[in-house]
Amino acid sequence: MALLVMKFGGTSVADIDRIRNVARHVKREVDAGNQCAVVVSAMAGHTNQLVAWAKEASPLHDMREYDSIVSSGELITAGLLAIILQSMGIPARSWQGWQIPIHTDDAHGAARITDIPGQEIRSRVMAGEVATIAGFQGIGPDGRVTTLGRGGSDTSAVAIAAALQADRCDIYTDVDGVYTTDPRIVSKAQRLARISYEEMLEMASLGAKVLQTRSVELAMAYGVRLLVRSSFTAPEDCQPAGKDDLDNTGTLVCSEDEILEKQIVSGIAYAKDEAKVTLLRIADKPGVAAAVFGPLAEANINVDMIVQNVSHDGQYTDLTFTVQDGDLPRAMQVLEEAKDKIGYEELRGATDVVKISVIGVGMRSHAGVAAQMFKALAERKINIEAITTSEIKISILIDAAYEELAIRTLHSLYGLDAA
Amino acid sequence: MALLVMKFGGTSVADIDRIRNVARHVKREVDAGNQCAVVVSAMAGHTNQLVAWAKEASPLHDMREYDSIVSSGELITAGLLAIILQSMGIPARSWQGWQIPIHTDDAHGAARITDIPGQEIRSRVMAGEVATIAGFQGIGPDGRVTTLGRGGSDTSAVAIAAALQADRCDIYTDVDGVYTTDPRIVSKAQRLARISYEEMLEMASLGAKVLQTRSVELAMAYGVRLLVRSSFTAPEDCQPAGKDDLDNTGTLVCSEDEILEKQIVSGIAYAKDEAKVTLLRIADKPGVAAAVFGPLAEANINVDMIVQNVSHDGQYTDLTFTVQDGDLPRAMQVLEEAKDKIGYEELRGATDVVKISVIGVGMRSHAGVAAQMFKALAERKINIEAITTSEIKISILIDAAYEELAIRTLHSLYGLDAA
Repeated sequence: MALLVMKFGGTSVADIDRIRNVARHVKREVDAGNQCAVVVSAMAGHTNQLVAWAKEASPLHDMREYDSIVSSGELITAGLLAIILQSMGIPARSWQGWQIPIHTDDAHGAARITDIPGQEIRSRVMAGEVATIAGFQGIGPDGRVTTLGRGGSDTSAVAIAAALQADRCDIYTDVDGVYTTDPRIVSKAQRLARISYEEMLEMASLGAKVLQTRSVELAMAYGVRLLVRSSFTAPEDCQPAGKDDLDNTGTLVCSEDEILEKQIVSGIAYAKDEAKVTLLRIADKPGVAAAVFGPLAEANINVDMIVQNVSHDGQYTDLTFTVQDGDLPRAMQVLEEAKDKIGYEELRGATDVVKISVIGVGMRSHAGVAAQMFKALAERKINIEAITTSEIKISILIDAAYEELAIRTLHSLYGLDAA
Repeated sequence: MALLVMKFGGTSVADIDRIRNVARHVKREVDAGNQCAVVVSAMAGHTNQLVAWAKEASPLHDMREYDSIVSSGELITAGLLAIILQSMGIPARSWQGWQIPIHTDDAHGAARITDIPGQEIRSRVMAGEVATIAGFQGIGPDGRVTTLGRGGSDTSAVAIAAALQADRCDIYTDVDGVYTTDPRIVSKAQRLARISYEEMLEMASLGAKVLQTRSVELAMAYGVRLLVRSSFTAPEDCQPAGKDDLDNTGTLVCSEDEILEKQIVSGIAYAKDEAKVTLLRIADKPGVAAAVFGPLAEANINVDMIVQNVSHDGQYTDLTFTVQDGDLPRAMQVLEEAKDKIGYEELRGATDVVKISVIGVGMRSHAGVAAQMFKALAERKINIEAITTSEIKISILIDAAYEELAIRTLHSLYGLDAA
């Protein structure tokens, strides 16, 4: 018998029939003796409509009102699921964020969960009543409704799982797990049976949009085991928790300890929304980096990769870095305005770049991963424009035209291709 | 300077442009120095969609879940209105039912307001912040969301007005006031400048669907002055409260003391949704009425008018009564099943009847109103099938074919025709 949190996103609850399908997934678990809390998103498209109305009301709107408006969609789904479960003979009740309560800070629109007391919901779930929970929302210090930002229902689910000390948190999505890379690019991409929190964090933040980054951070902090699985598999074709074969169901995101056979490289992620900024011929002296990145930080523009070339002559150098492509126009403007203060010869911006990342906890104990990578890409005549690394990741910036070739090359290189 | 509660229904907030129109009504009052609390319904059609989903989920659904689902629409409107008011430079914030809190009993789907502490909302409104309030909803003793039944936003508005000790509660609707009768039937129908609570209660319950009955009861109990007015009059063409000419703006529903010139008859209402049931040749002895109306009460069928004819021979009589037409099939079934116990010869049901009511507080001090009515209808060869009266009302049941003729005849008879 397991205590299970199950989370279903917008496409999984898009209409009453889809919600019935969700209810059958829940029934399977209840019939097997598992206790369930189910976190749901708004019906697909609903939140977009609410956001559009808020924008139409005023482009610059009070985020407290925005939260009150956009959090309403989840209430509907939570109530409908409770009704359907009851009609199947399963005791159930819905919970709005403030009823549990899911306490958050006051950062409306992107609030962080601070505490979930939840004694009542816990005792009811323990007693066999299924809790259907409106995801994406909480209640701030001032008693007003907050939302957790886009994809926040994943975070709700993980936080609820931590508060209930659940055995597992099953995230039902429109894919059947986390893949070694994007199957649309590499047909031989394989589903990963397990992946560590650290690897998943790198994957999530680098473009594999399966799980929201914050939900993975939270899962790691509280040791919540996450199972990413498909909501489109017929409920009757799945085994309930405790009897299921995890190697053949979705992807388990867990601590490294649970992963016996560690791959050197687990996956290859990519991000197309990078833009490259290059400052040519800036002075190679202390204080210049501050003169460049200070104004960008003030303008709230995040800088990702940074490469400073070796000085040509001891006096001047070139500086390249990346920003989100949406931020590029503002970044260019900020740097043009600061031209005199920074002192550069030329400013260049480009969006025809892609960041490709090779990820794997096994890199910690294996040297030569980067060297292999550079060699393989060189053989394909792919020029690397920037490199950043971490303990379990190597990221490179290349010309967008070589995206697919680079990903396929690396996927084969590290032995990730399916047989 | 007045403290004003304003209420706008679904058609008045049907889209962002209509909500902007509402905001301009509010701005007019704020600019004049009035303090405002604004109660809003869900955008037109929204609640119907939610109700349909709940029914699709399960025809027999938990009303607590139903309430949680259908109360979500008002949250959207309250938030959007706050955003638009803020964009006009007017301090505003939205309030969900549980935030005020609007305490209700636990009769989910048709809850009654029990208490509105509301210290915080009162002090904020007093300080000049417009409160935009989600109508139709409250919070039950168990901390779950309740709804007040269809048209419940009127009740919300009146209850808020009572709690805030507002000077007036303006109900903006799609008509410009309460008329002497339905203008679609009598083109000479006139807007009433004032009407007493008692008269409005009779009008509301008898088919003039301008205000929900319970909202009028509540207004009467707490002495809340209600102004029924049009939301389609351009905001700039209205005068703010305190400067407005009430004789030329909508209809004021108030205590009799405020109505100087009392009409004998104020209005004529009609109800087409009546059905007539006749039991022929039942025993004229004690206990028969109980045998008839007991089973109907058990089946939750409300009986309205009851007429028992004079006994033909001291042994048998005929019994006629009316029920809502939607209840007729069930009523017939109940009575057929109880045939042996009641002992009647024949059971007849008919829906081709209409109830017409003549209403006026002046009847209290004027005899002969009924006699005039019967004479006028007799001259038109209109047969009266049943009669009920109260202190301020005479209701008759007639053949539906004569509905318009009867209403026009009575409207002229009591001097209600416009010049």
